Amino acid sequence: MPIITLTTDLGTRDHYAGSVKGALISAIPNATIIDITHDIEPFNTLHAAHVFRNCYRDFPVGTIHLIGVNAFHDAATATLVVQYQGCWFVAPDNGFFGLIWEEESPSSIFLLKEYESIFPMRDEFVRAASHIISGTVEQIAVKATTYRMSRMTKPLISEQYLRGSIVYFDRFGNAITNIQKKDFNAMVKGRNFTVAFKRYADVESLSLNYASVDESEKMCFFNSSGYLEIAINKGNARQLLNLNYSDTVQIDFH
Amino acid sequence: MPIITLTTDLGTRDHYAGSVKGALISAIPNATIIDITHDIEPFNTLHAAHVFRNCYRDFPVGTIHLIGVNAFHDAATATLVVQYQGCWFVAPDNGFFGLIWEEESPSSIFLLKEYESIFPMRDEFVRAASHIISGTVEQIAVKATTYRMSRMTKPLISEQYLRGSIVYFDRFGNAITNIQKKDFNAMVKGRNFTVAFKRYADVESLSLNYASVDESEKMCFFNSSGYLEIAINKGNARQLLNLNYSDTVQIDFH
Amino acid sequence: MPIITLTTDLGTRDHYAGSVKGALISAIPNATIIDITHDIEPFNTLHAAHVFRNCYRDFPVGTIHLIGVNAFHDAATATLVVQYQGCWFVAPDNGFFGLIWEEESPSSIFLLKEYESIFPMRDEFVRAASHIISGTVEQIAVKATTYRMSRMTKPLISEQYLRGSIVYFDRFGNAITNIQKKDFNAMVKGRNFTVAFKRYADVESLSLNYASVDESEKMCFFNSSGYLEIAINKGNARQLLNLNYSDTVQIDFH
Repeated sequence: MPIITLTTDLGTRDHYAGSVKGALISAIPNATIIDITHDIEPFNTLHAAHVFRNCYRDFPVGTIHLIGVNAFHDAATATLVVQYQGCWFVAPDNGFFGLIWEEESPSSIFLLKEYESIFPMRDEFVRAASHIISGTVEQIAVKATTYRMSRMTKPLISEQYLRGSIVYFDRFGNAITNIQKKDFNAMVKGRNFTVAFKRYADVESLSLNYASVDESEKMCFFNSSGYLEIAINKGNARQLLNLNYSDTVQIDFH
Repeated sequence: MPIITLTTDLGTRDHYAGSVKGALISAIPNATIIDITHDIEPFNTLHAAHVFRNCYRDFPVGTIHLIGVNAFHDAATATLVVQYQGCWFVAPDNGFFGLIWEEESPSSIFLLKEYESIFPMRDEFVRAASHIISGTVEQIAVKATTYRMSRMTKPLISEQYLRGSIVYFDRFGNAITNIQKKDFNAMVKGRNFTVAFKRYADVESLSLNYASVDESEKMCFFNSSGYLEIAINKGNARQLLNLNYSDTVQIDFH
Repeated sequence: MPIITLTTDLGTRDHYAGSVKGALISAIPNATIIDITHDIEPFNTLHAAHVFRNCYRDFPVGTIHLIGVNAFHDAATATLVVQYQGCWFVAPDNGFFGLIWEEESPSSIFLLKEYESIFPMRDEFVRAASHIISGTVEQIAVKATTYRMSRMTKPLISEQYLRGSIVYFDRFGNAITNIQKKDFNAMVKGRNFTVAFKRYADVESLSLNYASVDESEKMCFFNSSGYLEIAINKGNARQLLNLNYSDTVQIDFH
């Protein structure tokens, strides 16, 4: 049974997500359809990239991922089909893949041939999924060598500090930064450090997880995706610490 | 595997939708349950009709559709089972079907026999689905010849103009009207036209889709369901153009 | 095909629920995954208990229920696996089960052995589900005899009155109390009664369901879960009657 996931900004109060699921089950009756989310903010490719990047590896080899954010047909935006690490990915060529794979380069990239539709997720994406399953993607697509790039802001890495920023808030108000555990591990070299994110809001150690501090205490830790996160145990760090998107977060070694 | 869809106003923060899904999978273990939406506004049959009308045709022949809006048992409202175009539809007799099929008349209509339940979607609707699958609807229902009617507002169609109104806003703020493409095509006869929807907000041509105009530009087009839609490319037309439900939208030919 | 349900506070706009579903379908490819809800209020065990208690019995024997509210790993909170009435339940040992089973005592209780994870629902809960299916729970857990208790407020029951309180509001604004039908039936003994919940807001009879009164009329009835509910037919009782959590609701017999 093919597994097909959906990550979209279509919402759940209109007919759009229902239409896509109906078209999928019509075309691929034995599909297992899994909603990753339909609650991506309208047109927000960065939001979609954050969500998808942090969960797609949890799905098994062979999964077909349809990512439809800002997917209503744009004459300037073709639809891509990418095969990578045994899975398939269908999304508009709008920079999304560059946000997902920062240091990797999938080799199997296909560009769907022009296809007239007002509702491409229902029509073009579902047709692509059918061709993926039947092994006939090349009937509807041409090979490509690359896709449009767009990049996350990168932290500054130096001997004295890592300077990054807040790139995402989750529903709990946890602030996720772009500072990676592997960079921290390479630079810390046994030194002491402080994490500074607001005047007076320094943290001087890393916690293992939310529960490593008392309730209502602030803390920093590397989350299950390997990124530095600022949180309050059972509290909303975004609100209580007055954090904002793009706020600087700096780890100073000393 | 029978496909069963759910379109309800039960929401997702209470136990109601979970109960219905549990009862369904208990009664019909091999069912594929597809949530169209549980986010219909409470009691809003018009909202349910808009969503359902625009997506049910995307599902395959044989699908059983359960539509539970305002379905908590009303002594004055029986539950209907309708067979039409190879699919099955279960909904309260509250005018919903008249909103779905404006120019069609399903011939197979059944009225469920009285059934005492405080939670009819979980009890009565699920039982109806079981009988549909086993081909025994007539054990629990009597044949009927019609259902309660309620109608959408119709646009005025004349030689000089089509005058309709806004009947729905989607999550993106796109305004959907009740003006149909087939009526426009029959009346335009090669003439020029303007679409007027607010003083100063005229549009003089139809676009193919959202991306036919620059970002932040307003536009009109016939959407994938065949209805005239007022939109702003990557913007919220409802807010930015100050549109409201029932606003008049008029196409003048000249 | 094993049925696995999810009741969580993970929300639907982040990657968390997608990760759990991906890990489940990777570990148990033939699972039928059913979302009860991901919209439990963050950390709100009472909300989770209300939702779960009212729907889990609708699922078939053999179902595995994963309840992940406030489940991010807490050194002080182990994860429990409970077998009861032919079903399996996985949840943190945070008082949840005491809220579900007030007068029952499941005999098969297992405590998962320590397991290091920042994201226990994705890792530890999914691993537990796999072991449940393969009949090897005892490989990863030790037998326990009880779990942490936390209790719902109980109504006062006397010869003259039942005095309870509002414990939940659903999306429709219906107010659910902790007064049970079986206690009412035992005490009423054919007498007249009034239900008092706000000065001037007395109700002198019980309705069968929402539709037993005219639209916009207030009413009380025992809902499909057996609890006294205050509602307004097609209206929002919470707002219109200015009701609040913990408000006293009293049935006086006379």
